[in-house]
Amino acid sequence: MSHSLDGTTRLFPIIGDPVKYVRAPQVLSAGLAARGYNGMCVPAEVPDGALAEVMRGLALTKNVDGLLVTMPHKFKAASFCGTTSDRSKLLGAVSVTRRNADGSWHGDILDGLAFVKAQIDAGATIKGARILLIGAGAAGSAIAVALLDSGARELIVHDVEGSRAQALLKVLESVGPGRIICGSADPTDCDMVCNASSSGMAAGDPIPVEATLLKSTMFVGDVIAGHGLTPFLQAAQAAGCKTANGDEMVEAQQEMMLDFLLIGR
Amino acid sequence: MSHSLDGTTRLFPIIGDPVKYVRAPQVLSAGLAARGYNGMCVPAEVPDGALAEVMRGLALTKNVDGLLVTMPHKFKAASFCGTTSDRSKLLGAVSVTRRNADGSWHGDILDGLAFVKAQIDAGATIKGARILLIGAGAAGSAIAVALLDSGARELIVHDVEGSRAQALLKVLESVGPGRIICGSADPTDCDMVCNASSSGMAAGDPIPVEATLLKSTMFVGDVIAGHGLTPFLQAAQAAGCKTANGDEMVEAQQEMMLDFLLIGR
Repeated sequence: MSHSLDGTTRLFPIIGDPVKYVRAPQVLSAGLAARGYNGMCVPAEVPDGALAEVMRGLALTKNVDGLLVTMPHKFKAASFCGTTSDRSKLLGAVSVTRRNADGSWHGDILDGLAFVKAQIDAGATIKGARILLIGAGAAGSAIAVALLDSGARELIVHDVEGSRAQALLKVLESVGPGRIICGSADPTDCDMVCNASSSGMAAGDPIPVEATLLKSTMFVGDVIAGHGLTPFLQAAQAAGCKTANGDEMVEAQQEMMLDFLLIGR
Repeated sequence: MSHSLDGTTRLFPIIGDPVKYVRAPQVLSAGLAARGYNGMCVPAEVPDGALAEVMRGLALTKNVDGLLVTMPHKFKAASFCGTTSDRSKLLGAVSVTRRNADGSWHGDILDGLAFVKAQIDAGATIKGARILLIGAGAAGSAIAVALLDSGARELIVHDVEGSRAQALLKVLESVGPGRIICGSADPTDCDMVCNASSSGMAAGDPIPVEATLLKSTMFVGDVIAGHGLTPFLQAAQAAGCKTANGDEMVEAQQEMMLDFLLIGR
């Protein structure tokens, strides 16, 4: 490990449940060290019902400079922020917070930007693409915004909870009018397939798209990090698809995250 | 750094204010790694009024396996423990906590044992000694118990707040009947002088005992860690005294702390 650790170390906990697969403790801590900042990202396993009390305690802990927020807290955490970015306001979700001058949290959500960067870095073309997006949770919602902002021709959103996809459609009417629809998990005629659901986190999860429907012309991306090549991406590669996994998204998010967290420091 | 850091790392925050001088993040983290435990001690700067809310948040954070407690929280933190050791009960103070099976905290205070070990390791003889103890706070109280348990002939307790010394006397009546008195900061005729006050933490602090009264026959110990040789110990060495500083106490406490925290793990 290249980072330092002493009584003056500043903390950037990553709050989630499960938290054991997150790679931010290694990756972000190394990035903080590379920027010469004595700070560390540590995992914080926070069950769903405990968020309010944990956020309160962290807000009162003076050497906590920022928070990373992951499943299942991205929506609820937004309500504990004093201020948020426009995209966080639109989605009602945050993935990262830093302190305002008064000690309150300023929240933003960088998942979408990072996902898009990881796909493009791995060879995807988003402009003009017809894209199937699986998962309309916080990460999926942020990814939907970024895909539309990046010029996707048509975005088909599917969620096992149909009402979540419908709710996202309503939120995004203003961002991509006429370019976003709800649909099934069938990727036929899509240029790109994105998994933003938690499918792939647990052993034995069904893969989110029928493997036989994948074609080599499709680019396939997955948000699942810390699991290497997920069964979904294994199936995609077997079908001849180019892919990007969640670890690549974490890497892509690294500099954005550091810029956000260390602004003014 | 030899420790690991990833999503499965268990946390042992050290709660204090100020916290920047504590050495437990380096020392205890290295000790956890040496025992093959993926755990880390991180600093948590918690102001006096924020303890209850921070303790609540930490209790709900599942990968927090234990807490180290330092100034000014050692007394108040005891009230957030479900169970405590006998010496913590006597003193109403804790310096370390671990989880009970039901998730509540079990607290203990190891400062006294560690201080005594550090003095003996550095050449002090406590059995039969007449000892001046400066500071009747949580650390001082724990040290008083351990000095009496180690056979001190007479313990003179001094605190700038006289009422604190009186209160400690009352608490310790049962431990060292007839061997403990309140007194001034004059070390004349003492074999040992111990600083357990915070004097020496801030630049320009007066030294706790008049330097001209120190004699080479006295052993002088200090609890202040992270400050190298404090002005008090510099004066003691100039007078020809053997000394032990707070860093040596932290080292002495290391294995006790690890044994306490990792019991059953």
